[in-house]
Amino acid sequence: MFISFEGIDFCGKSTQIKLLKEYLERKNIVVEILREPGGTEISEQVRTILLSKKNNLMTLETEVLLFAASRAQLVREKLIPLLQSGSYVISDRFHDSTTAYQGYGRGIPLNIIDNIHKISVSDTLPDLTFLIDISLEEVENRKLKISNSELDRIEISDRIFFEKVRTGYLELAKSEKRFVVINGLEEVNHIHDKIVTIINQHTLGNVK
Amino acid sequence: MFISFEGIDFCGKSTQIKLLKEYLERKNIVVEILREPGGTEISEQVRTILLSKKNNLMTLETEVLLFAASRAQLVREKLIPLLQSGSYVISDRFHDSTTAYQGYGRGIPLNIIDNIHKISVSDTLPDLTFLIDISLEEVENRKLKISNSELDRIEISDRIFFEKVRTGYLELAKSEKRFVVINGLEEVNHIHDKIVTIINQHTLGNVK
Repeated sequence: MFISFEGIDFCGKSTQIKLLKEYLERKNIVVEILREPGGTEISEQVRTILLSKKNNLMTLETEVLLFAASRAQLVREKLIPLLQSGSYVISDRFHDSTTAYQGYGRGIPLNIIDNIHKISVSDTLPDLTFLIDISLEEVENRKLKISNSELDRIEISDRIFFEKVRTGYLELAKSEKRFVVINGLEEVNHIHDKIVTIINQHTLGNVK
Repeated sequence: MFISFEGIDFCGKSTQIKLLKEYLERKNIVVEILREPGGTEISEQVRTILLSKKNNLMTLETEVLLFAASRAQLVREKLIPLLQSGSYVISDRFHDSTTAYQGYGRGIPLNIIDNIHKISVSDTLPDLTFLIDISLEEVENRKLKISNSELDRIEISDRIFFEKVRTGYLELAKSEKRFVVINGLEEVNHIHDKIVTIINQHTLGNVK
């Protein structure tokens, strides 16, 4: 089973992924967490280029191609072999991030983004995608707790950009059946329980 | 004017580019040489990933996307501004290398490669492309003069691969009017004279 978590920065994805991993491991399920961009030696080298603040001249086209390159390597070197071995795989961001950030957020035409997905992920798509949705007001509150020097090149982007990304995610969620939208303002354990219930329903649905 | 030089490794491109640059500078023409992959700070970081021998697990899809990313940055950050300033630009490899190496050589479908070109170079195409064509026998002879440890990840690929790349280049040359095929076995200064003649003809043609 392949599950992706999506949402704008500071939505609480990482906390939920940690809780879900612990839950699955208590059930003796083998589970692997993948990090996007990154996750293989080559993809991590690409990640370094993408997130480095000194690369502030990076064009939109370069950005989208680098994300796709990192993902193409992760899919073939790690994700496909893990799924074939029967492991659960949870990905902290996957191809929907590119559609939301570089497509809706930065304005690269969505048909071009879809063409790139065809090369980078081909047909290796998540079975379930949890979109943790929070308002931009809440993002600002959570950001205040972090000093500016700890933010990467993409996290320091402006608010209008993140509004577009959020809208994009919600559009995607409407058009793709695998999406489950979760209200990220709810209490952490409450969100976790919801996620577990949905995964169990999904698994039962597949067994039937 | 934007001129690209193409051909399999060891065809003699670099020597010809050097001679052409000297010729144009003697004519007081401002000329800039670009190196593919690379040529900007970000593109050089991508180049390092592409050519590092330790990255031997790199998939075809990753490779083609990284070349495109490096080029996308070069086009917008350097090539377009140079052409707008009236400079001559000579590129040591450009998008045709991706079609020849990753398309014909490694078997990525040509329509996918063309879609990637649309993002990475858009409509910034060379006015003239010199394909320096040499046989694989000649490549082997020239390689013998270099120790194996000095060759990069792509240069140590096998002969069947380079045969496909050469065929791909010759196919491209048939289909694109901007190509000029040069016999790379001819004497260096003789090749140089031919190139200069063709550029002068091309420039005159544009003036008419």
